[in-house]
Amino acid sequence: MKLLRVGPAGAERPALLDQDGTLRDLSALVTDVDPALLSDAAALDRLRAAAGAGVLPPLDAAGLRIGPPVARIGKVVCIGLNYHDHARETGAEPPVEPVVFLKAADTVVGPHDTVLVPRGSRKTDWEVELAVVIGRTARRLDSAQEALAHVAGYAVAHDVSEREFQLERGGTWDKGKNCETFNPLGPWLVTADEVPDPQDLRLRLWVNGELKQDGSTADQIFPVGEVVRYVSHFMTLHPGDVVNTGTPAGVAMGRPEPKPYLRAGDVVELEIDGLGRQRQELKDA
Amino acid sequence: MKLLRVGPAGAERPALLDQDGTLRDLSALVTDVDPALLSDAAALDRLRAAAGAGVLPPLDAAGLRIGPPVARIGKVVCIGLNYHDHARETGAEPPVEPVVFLKAADTVVGPHDTVLVPRGSRKTDWEVELAVVIGRTARRLDSAQEALAHVAGYAVAHDVSEREFQLERGGTWDKGKNCETFNPLGPWLVTADEVPDPQDLRLRLWVNGELKQDGSTADQIFPVGEVVRYVSHFMTLHPGDVVNTGTPAGVAMGRPEPKPYLRAGDVVELEIDGLGRQRQELKDA
Repeated sequence: MKLLRVGPAGAERPALLDQDGTLRDLSALVTDVDPALLSDAAALDRLRAAAGAGVLPPLDAAGLRIGPPVARIGKVVCIGLNYHDHARETGAEPPVEPVVFLKAADTVVGPHDTVLVPRGSRKTDWEVELAVVIGRTARRLDSAQEALAHVAGYAVAHDVSEREFQLERGGTWDKGKNCETFNPLGPWLVTADEVPDPQDLRLRLWVNGELKQDGSTADQIFPVGEVVRYVSHFMTLHPGDVVNTGTPAGVAMGRPEPKPYLRAGDVVELEIDGLGRQRQELKDA
Repeated sequence: MKLLRVGPAGAERPALLDQDGTLRDLSALVTDVDPALLSDAAALDRLRAAAGAGVLPPLDAAGLRIGPPVARIGKVVCIGLNYHDHARETGAEPPVEPVVFLKAADTVVGPHDTVLVPRGSRKTDWEVELAVVIGRTARRLDSAQEALAHVAGYAVAHDVSEREFQLERGGTWDKGKNCETFNPLGPWLVTADEVPDPQDLRLRLWVNGELKQDGSTADQIFPVGEVVRYVSHFMTLHPGDVVNTGTPAGVAMGRPEPKPYLRAGDVVELEIDGLGRQRQELKDA
């Protein structure tokens, strides 16, 4: 299933994109796409059955905003330097174990919402990422295979990053990762049963129509199951938590000077095979 | 006012500790001590009036668990190395600007709840901290004085830290700061009007009855107002967000070998003048 949330920010309703590409209203069946739903296999099966039976009312998609596909996200755990080609372009050694940092859930916005260039920013950068949404509480998992069974689904994430704040202002990366609007998510949460191999997904990102990133999750240093297993030994992952699994090569920071950091007016588009497409316009905060 | 939340985890009710030390039930007046209440000055004034009029029903405190004093915390922003004496004991230079990292809100537990030593941990450490709870959305504030007007109140926080995970496992500090139960908070949220000078508070922490930390917020490198102002330029602070403002000297990491890291069975007590006292027993996760 492709689950999503549509409507004004803070007042989204749950919806489903069916196999014909028709948007269907789920609000008679569930209150929201939220941690309670994601951890309820029976409720998800009922949605699947209703979608198959063709009984869900259609929604007019025209002019409808798409919100983040999950409500009440608890935390966004991010993996740094998780693609061989991206580690190379930053000049970093491939990490021996996953690099972990956090984004607050309040950075999450819809896939087509405006992204704000922070006041004083000179190095706002893009990063297309495969996001994993957790469906079952994950605590000290033993294997990557067990970890994959805790994944509710997958989505496109844009891990927007301010490199000066992240790397040149002291302390940890979090300072450059948590600016307002810095985590567009969606358009859809594609349930895990429809993503047979999360290590075979092509990720692309364009700035003003020019292709900047073109990678594959096959190039991940730590694959999705291993990332979730590893993180579960340091923190408990709860239903509705999001894990951004890292970005492939092609970010602004990895390019020759003058590096093409984002500015107001730029348009970023992101796509992952089968998970849909995002488009954001940049504006000044 | 001293606001708190009492009852089983996840089912706490709002309460107030009055000037006579009697616990009073607030659940007829407000649904919870949450972001909506903290940002509603009129509602807080009504609680203050009701407390003054002596009309709030008493609660029997015997056997009642105290939860975290705020529900639906969005994020916990932490400041590292913010006391001159603590920076010295870690061998770090005093930072030129605040060191910022994040804890997820799901690390927050009540002030007397069990703290879990993570599986495989050899370096679980203590840190008593003054926590600031945000009452008004704070975005790019101009001055420390303006920032203090965005503070709803203050509480004791225990920023439990696993030093090996934080410093020796690659990546950012977050890996050692987000283990389950790693942020006891409370017992009370003391509203800002009752904390005339947040830079004149004594903080103490004991392990198994032995005084380990004994500092004053007067020793903070970046005072509370400056911390909130600074953070508001990198991320938006929302009502109910918590800022842990750093720890004074005396942590296990700062001591000679063998460093006395925490183990199951240890008891940690923490106190800040006027903000109450915490007590946690350590257990193995």
